[in-house]
Amino acid sequence: MKEIITIKDIARMCNVGVATVSRAINDDPGINEKTKEKVLETVRKYRYVPNTSARNLKMTESNTIALVVCGVGNVFFSSMYDDFQNELEKNGYDFFLDSVDNDVNIPAEAFRLSKEKRLKGIIFLGGWINPESRSLLNVNVPFVFCTVSQAIKGPHAPCPTVGISDIIEAKRMVDYLCDMGHRRIAIIAGVEGDMAVGGGRLIGYKQSLAEHGIEVDERLIFHMKKDIDEFTVENGYAVTEELIASGIEFTAVFCISDLTAMGAYRAIYDAGLKIPEDISVVGFDGIEFGDYMYPRITTMVQPRHEMAVESVRILLDLIAGKEDIPDTVFETELLTRDSVKKIN
Amino acid sequence: MKEIITIKDIARMCNVGVATVSRAINDDPGINEKTKEKVLETVRKYRYVPNTSARNLKMTESNTIALVVCGVGNVFFSSMYDDFQNELEKNGYDFFLDSVDNDVNIPAEAFRLSKEKRLKGIIFLGGWINPESRSLLNVNVPFVFCTVSQAIKGPHAPCPTVGISDIIEAKRMVDYLCDMGHRRIAIIAGVEGDMAVGGGRLIGYKQSLAEHGIEVDERLIFHMKKDIDEFTVENGYAVTEELIASGIEFTAVFCISDLTAMGAYRAIYDAGLKIPEDISVVGFDGIEFGDYMYPRITTMVQPRHEMAVESVRILLDLIAGKEDIPDTVFETELLTRDSVKKIN
Repeated sequence: MKEIITIKDIARMCNVGVATVSRAINDDPGINEKTKEKVLETVRKYRYVPNTSARNLKMTESNTIALVVCGVGNVFFSSMYDDFQNELEKNGYDFFLDSVDNDVNIPAEAFRLSKEKRLKGIIFLGGWINPESRSLLNVNVPFVFCTVSQAIKGPHAPCPTVGISDIIEAKRMVDYLCDMGHRRIAIIAGVEGDMAVGGGRLIGYKQSLAEHGIEVDERLIFHMKKDIDEFTVENGYAVTEELIASGIEFTAVFCISDLTAMGAYRAIYDAGLKIPEDISVVGFDGIEFGDYMYPRITTMVQPRHEMAVESVRILLDLIAGKEDIPDTVFETELLTRDSVKKIN
Repeated sequence: MKEIITIKDIARMCNVGVATVSRAINDDPGINEKTKEKVLETVRKYRYVPNTSARNLKMTESNTIALVVCGVGNVFFSSMYDDFQNELEKNGYDFFLDSVDNDVNIPAEAFRLSKEKRLKGIIFLGGWINPESRSLLNVNVPFVFCTVSQAIKGPHAPCPTVGISDIIEAKRMVDYLCDMGHRRIAIIAGVEGDMAVGGGRLIGYKQSLAEHGIEVDERLIFHMKKDIDEFTVENGYAVTEELIASGIEFTAVFCISDLTAMGAYRAIYDAGLKIPEDISVVGFDGIEFGDYMYPRITTMVQPRHEMAVESVRILLDLIAGKEDIPDTVFETELLTRDSVKKIN
């Protein structure tokens, strides 16, 4: 049964009029229940697809925006999906989510998408894009980077970005630890060589220590492991285990994400140590789970909702033809909870 | 500049041959760097889209599978996205994720999708579908329900399901609490009237109590709040606060999801109580975060990876024309960790 089945075929097979088939499909009350059942059985059997001109029109005028996410299972990102969706649908756009691996060529994937799905635009969420890559030049729809590190914006990424300054905000987090009297502060930074989010936060850590007259002790800088997914609880756990096992003295640890901090918590518990009595821990991002840990995690809260809304606003401006849109840099908010002890 | 720009236009504007434009776009090394720069500038300026026949072919032969998720930010689901993606890509399919609200007509959305994106198939993940709904009959591509409660499978949902038995597995969780000596066991169940996952797990709770000769005390049955997203930490927190404030005696609480249990933890901490010394807590699902809580959450582990792989396998069978595929019911694994105290 390969040829295309039309509404007339269905009507003929059921021995009813075309209008009756239409009513059955549209759950119209003005139709006998038994007839309806018969029509729907036939519709199903022959996989008939209603094919009105209105629907064809919609198929041609795609109004779809893609959210291309690198780290789709990361709760920092997944907590933003609803914001993106609500904001896009409010403006009459469909939305779908495309997940890309860290090692996938993100711009190439975006180009492929923009061709196959007749997109109106793309929002990139997370990930890292080689600033030398030219592939973005080939993406033929407007696009925005959201929470993609500012550092990566090379000459060939001609689009506005929405995010925070990782350097400045990480520095503020470490400033707080210094103000609480800590001087032996470890960091769980991104993977070695990270030039994006992880790299920026490491620079902020070093700047804060320098300003507080504390010499950077390279032995206190730990990097996420490359063989475990980045920014995950597992990675935070594995690295903190090593940090504790190293025997190097420290009173506080700055985890560059809350998920990493959750992993650090477990390693600290498992070592028989208490937070914050023995070790103070701070995170970054402000995911909701930090509030459910014991003790609550002190962190820098990124304004995720506002970042999503702003990304959509900018994308709509781009679609409308607006040019030279500046980058948007949000500030984070220090949220002091229960995971830092004051040292005198 | 509304008309379509061709590769010949770009070549003419740059004063080069068509092959040179092609080389520039494809990052071919055999081209002068300056020429390449000029071509790419022009490509960008005029938003030229390469339009080879190979690509056109690909556009027509869409090989895309949609994952329609209800509760896209729920970590139980988001931890499965990579499994779905890997499994689909391994089999030569593209993948995208479509997020639907709980109150959206999921089958109608699926029908819309299947029309607009020329899908090869759909996997539904989570959510609840009215068993009386006929809309699924209109979906013209093969589809599978994954972790959609068995209970919902009505006569008009003609597709295989992959999941667990919520009744049997919840009963096993409560059996464990009974075996540990608990008789005053509260439950944080789904919203009132839940006929899907929440409803099944509540039945399992009651069956277990009955088998252990414990009369069901309706005052110990608490439902998730309808004004907060279901199965979230916030909901678990709010309900557990009420449970504690009610003053009703209980020694253990069965939270029907791990996220709910994480919320319960916070409410118990905030009341100045200890887990498991004062109250034992168990969850359900086996999400990774349960291992990072203090104490670790005892739970029933759903085989998420296997469920994703099996869903894809079944969908591919459906696409290949296989019929009468039976439902797949997985078992969960009791994972005893640190959140239950033995009572004598």
